[in-house]
Amino acid sequence: MARSGGRRISAQEVATLTGGRLVGPADVAVAAVAPLERAGPGELSFLAGSRHLPYFRRSAASLVLCRAEHEGEPLGPRSRVVVGDPQAALLAVLPVLYPAPDPTPGVHPTATIGAGARWEEPVTIGPGVVLGAGARLGRNVRIGPGCAIGEGVTIGDDALLHANVVCYAGTEIGRRVILHAGAVLGADGFGFAPAPVAPGGTGHRKITHVGRCRIGDDVEIGANSTIDRGSLGDTVIGDGSKIDNLVHVGHNVHLGQRVLIMAQVGIAGSTQVEDDVIIAGQAGVKDHVVIGRGARLGGRAAVIGDVPAGATVSGYPARDHRQSLRAQAALFRLAAIVDDLEALAKGAHGGSR
Amino acid sequence: MARSGGRRISAQEVATLTGGRLVGPADVAVAAVAPLERAGPGELSFLAGSRHLPYFRRSAASLVLCRAEHEGEPLGPRSRVVVGDPQAALLAVLPVLYPAPDPTPGVHPTATIGAGARWEEPVTIGPGVVLGAGARLGRNVRIGPGCAIGEGVTIGDDALLHANVVCYAGTEIGRRVILHAGAVLGADGFGFAPAPVAPGGTGHRKITHVGRCRIGDDVEIGANSTIDRGSLGDTVIGDGSKIDNLVHVGHNVHLGQRVLIMAQVGIAGSTQVEDDVIIAGQAGVKDHVVIGRGARLGGRAAVIGDVPAGATVSGYPARDHRQSLRAQAALFRLAAIVDDLEALAKGAHGGSR
Amino acid sequence: MARSGGRRISAQEVATLTGGRLVGPADVAVAAVAPLERAGPGELSFLAGSRHLPYFRRSAASLVLCRAEHEGEPLGPRSRVVVGDPQAALLAVLPVLYPAPDPTPGVHPTATIGAGARWEEPVTIGPGVVLGAGARLGRNVRIGPGCAIGEGVTIGDDALLHANVVCYAGTEIGRRVILHAGAVLGADGFGFAPAPVAPGGTGHRKITHVGRCRIGDDVEIGANSTIDRGSLGDTVIGDGSKIDNLVHVGHNVHLGQRVLIMAQVGIAGSTQVEDDVIIAGQAGVKDHVVIGRGARLGGRAAVIGDVPAGATVSGYPARDHRQSLRAQAALFRLAAIVDDLEALAKGAHGGSR
Repeated sequence: MARSGGRRISAQEVATLTGGRLVGPADVAVAAVAPLERAGPGELSFLAGSRHLPYFRRSAASLVLCRAEHEGEPLGPRSRVVVGDPQAALLAVLPVLYPAPDPTPGVHPTATIGAGARWEEPVTIGPGVVLGAGARLGRNVRIGPGCAIGEGVTIGDDALLHANVVCYAGTEIGRRVILHAGAVLGADGFGFAPAPVAPGGTGHRKITHVGRCRIGDDVEIGANSTIDRGSLGDTVIGDGSKIDNLVHVGHNVHLGQRVLIMAQVGIAGSTQVEDDVIIAGQAGVKDHVVIGRGARLGGRAAVIGDVPAGATVSGYPARDHRQSLRAQAALFRLAAIVDDLEALAKGAHGGSR
Repeated sequence: MARSGGRRISAQEVATLTGGRLVGPADVAVAAVAPLERAGPGELSFLAGSRHLPYFRRSAASLVLCRAEHEGEPLGPRSRVVVGDPQAALLAVLPVLYPAPDPTPGVHPTATIGAGARWEEPVTIGPGVVLGAGARLGRNVRIGPGCAIGEGVTIGDDALLHANVVCYAGTEIGRRVILHAGAVLGADGFGFAPAPVAPGGTGHRKITHVGRCRIGDDVEIGANSTIDRGSLGDTVIGDGSKIDNLVHVGHNVHLGQRVLIMAQVGIAGSTQVEDDVIIAGQAGVKDHVVIGRGARLGGRAAVIGDVPAGATVSGYPARDHRQSLRAQAALFRLAAIVDDLEALAKGAHGGSR
Repeated sequence: MARSGGRRISAQEVATLTGGRLVGPADVAVAAVAPLERAGPGELSFLAGSRHLPYFRRSAASLVLCRAEHEGEPLGPRSRVVVGDPQAALLAVLPVLYPAPDPTPGVHPTATIGAGARWEEPVTIGPGVVLGAGARLGRNVRIGPGCAIGEGVTIGDDALLHANVVCYAGTEIGRRVILHAGAVLGADGFGFAPAPVAPGGTGHRKITHVGRCRIGDDVEIGANSTIDRGSLGDTVIGDGSKIDNLVHVGHNVHLGQRVLIMAQVGIAGSTQVEDDVIIAGQAGVKDHVVIGRGARLGGRAAVIGDVPAGATVSGYPARDHRQSLRAQAALFRLAAIVDDLEALAKGAHGGSR
């Protein structure tokens, strides 16, 4: 375990936090969480299902979250908290045993504060942070070391920016947003016109990007991900959406609410992703398409057209997931018979090929 | 709109900037740009084509760029500037209405300037910038907060580095180059020899990289992209090339002029990409191949060999684009018939399989 | 060449460093290395094989590393060092001619040092570095500008962190590790539960991540790569593993020793990669699978299940490499015959489809 707040909570407190029922000795307390096979005295663990019973029976954990079916298990730790879903129940205990570090609020003396920037107390502005002119931070915003917050950026209450995040001018960030280290919000989109550049120069002319990058409430964005600003309109990430590391979201993309995007996904310009879509790792979505509400894009899917609401697609190019699986299976069966097929096909048409 | 310089330009100025012809009332002025459906009084919009006519007819924009065919449209905003390509014409107006922020030149007191570093005035060196020994900056170079510029780096006139860019020692950057936040130029390439490491250590021995990373004039590189230095020779990005976000360019790669590379593309070591090549998002190119002049690599293309000049390729592995499309179509038709085919193939050869 | 320490070494020293045999005039010295076609007086080059003989014959290099077979080549530079593998031999000379810059040790006055952070002398802590409370650095650690080192991070002897690296709290880094610019270690993994969020909020509830990110000895991690912390247990990168740029390693992943991972690879959560595995660029590995010792994953491979030790796989989904090649070849042959096949299949079954 990386962090420990040094807190110690009783078995009964664990039962209360998880809405569970304490059985066995109640005079135990725990200060950390560990998997069954590694847990020792003073540690809480969980029995996710029967296949983990061998570990449970040998576990030295002081307290274990388990289902009702394992409540009477003769071996294993005696103190148990009976819950419906032990792994989910653990989620309620973790923040208590491992509270997020609570930095002392204040503005670090090495921060650079632009003219007219303002915030509500308490706020934490770390070493080397640059806050642009006119930036506005809500209550309890915490900005990690080395972040560069451009002119006129707004950040909602309780947002947390880890180290070295960059927000270009005009970016809007909602409440309770978490931005991981190195994320870049609001950079210019990739837009160039085949027009002559300045005299003496070479290549395409840059399209001035005047739209914003707008991030809703309860959004989390992973390390080194990039969300471009809009060209004329805005790029929008809807409330409750979660984005993993190294993801690219192009200019003018609109993401709905509660969209989940895993690592290294790329979404090209002006595409709309509706509410509750799930996009697995390394998938890519073409520009100017619509991914319908609740659709699921499989890992590495290459989406080159609209996806209907509720559909599950995969493959390159992406199609209905079952069709894709069937096509892939056929391909591997095919390799074994293609020689014969060529002979057949040729025979059928008199060798016209 | 994220930015507004507070400028206000007349309908006639818009006509002049775009080379267009003003029709309708001339006594309007605009201070911002917006799409037809959102534009209001004091705003300029554009009618790209007939399918947007419904928006045009209801638009509250004060001034609209349109084609000659829509010049006499009875409904919609009365003041119009007639041009050949309304969307392209807008590009000429945007930089005037939304001028790039012009930071006050100077060296921020929190910057660290190495011995012998020098520049031509005016120059803007932001908070927390580290300028290595012997670095040389041209006229009007602007370096954003938190950039780390290594020893002996040279940066040409009018270049703009956004926040937290890193240039390793010896990197050369041309004139009018734009580097977006978090880009890393000149890191060591991925080169290891299966030679014994230092006593007590484990694994491969690092190949010392002594080549440079050289960026031509008028290049733009996206957020969090990485361009490695060369091993013995240099990695070179030619004049006028534009690179999107999260792109990887390996050691010793040579990119020609005006190459366009979209997000999340990877180009492995020592590959040559000739002038005017276009590489779409998430494509990958093997090491030591040549992509011929003007070739186009489709989105997600996996290039494992040379690509002839002017060719268009796609797929995995990448082949001629039409062949790829045909193969993919065949694959999906195949899945529906492969059972029958296996029976046929088997029958044709007496069940030899 | 980007760097030169101004050192000059004799032909005999080159022979000694490379374990080679000097033939021809011994009174030459070299101060730099260059390819045959660009090398001039005072420069060392190498003749990798016979196909480079035309360059060799015209080369102006002062000294050339070559094989015994080219020892008596009548044209070309006269001073030669005969070795078994000229390119490999060069590796022994490069660090001598191009010594890594040796920064003056010390703690830069703009660094921010947390309570209880400590280190062994000598140590180099660059401008703007933030060292969290309780962080511990070994001997000869060098930390580049703008790095943010979280609370309780430990870094082993002789480790080198380039600019703007971020290590979240509790990260452990081994000896002789090299972290390139913008790498992010120990960010929270992508873990969310479909549980209700805080009142008024939207979407999934974040799973508190309490595991660490642990990096072994002799590891190198590329620019802008991200290695997440574990959720309950740790994410582990084994000794001697090398990771290229823009790579994503998810929470709870265990990498063995001497694993090589090329650019833009993604490895999803809880996957195990055993010793000596090689993963080529843009490959992806699903969560919760095992990649057996010494396996090789081809470029862009999409691995969706366990891979046996020693296997070579490629394709989407990844299969045995030869099978994949065969399937791809069959696919492209297929496109030419599928019309005929449909007719055949239909005929064989009386038009039942």
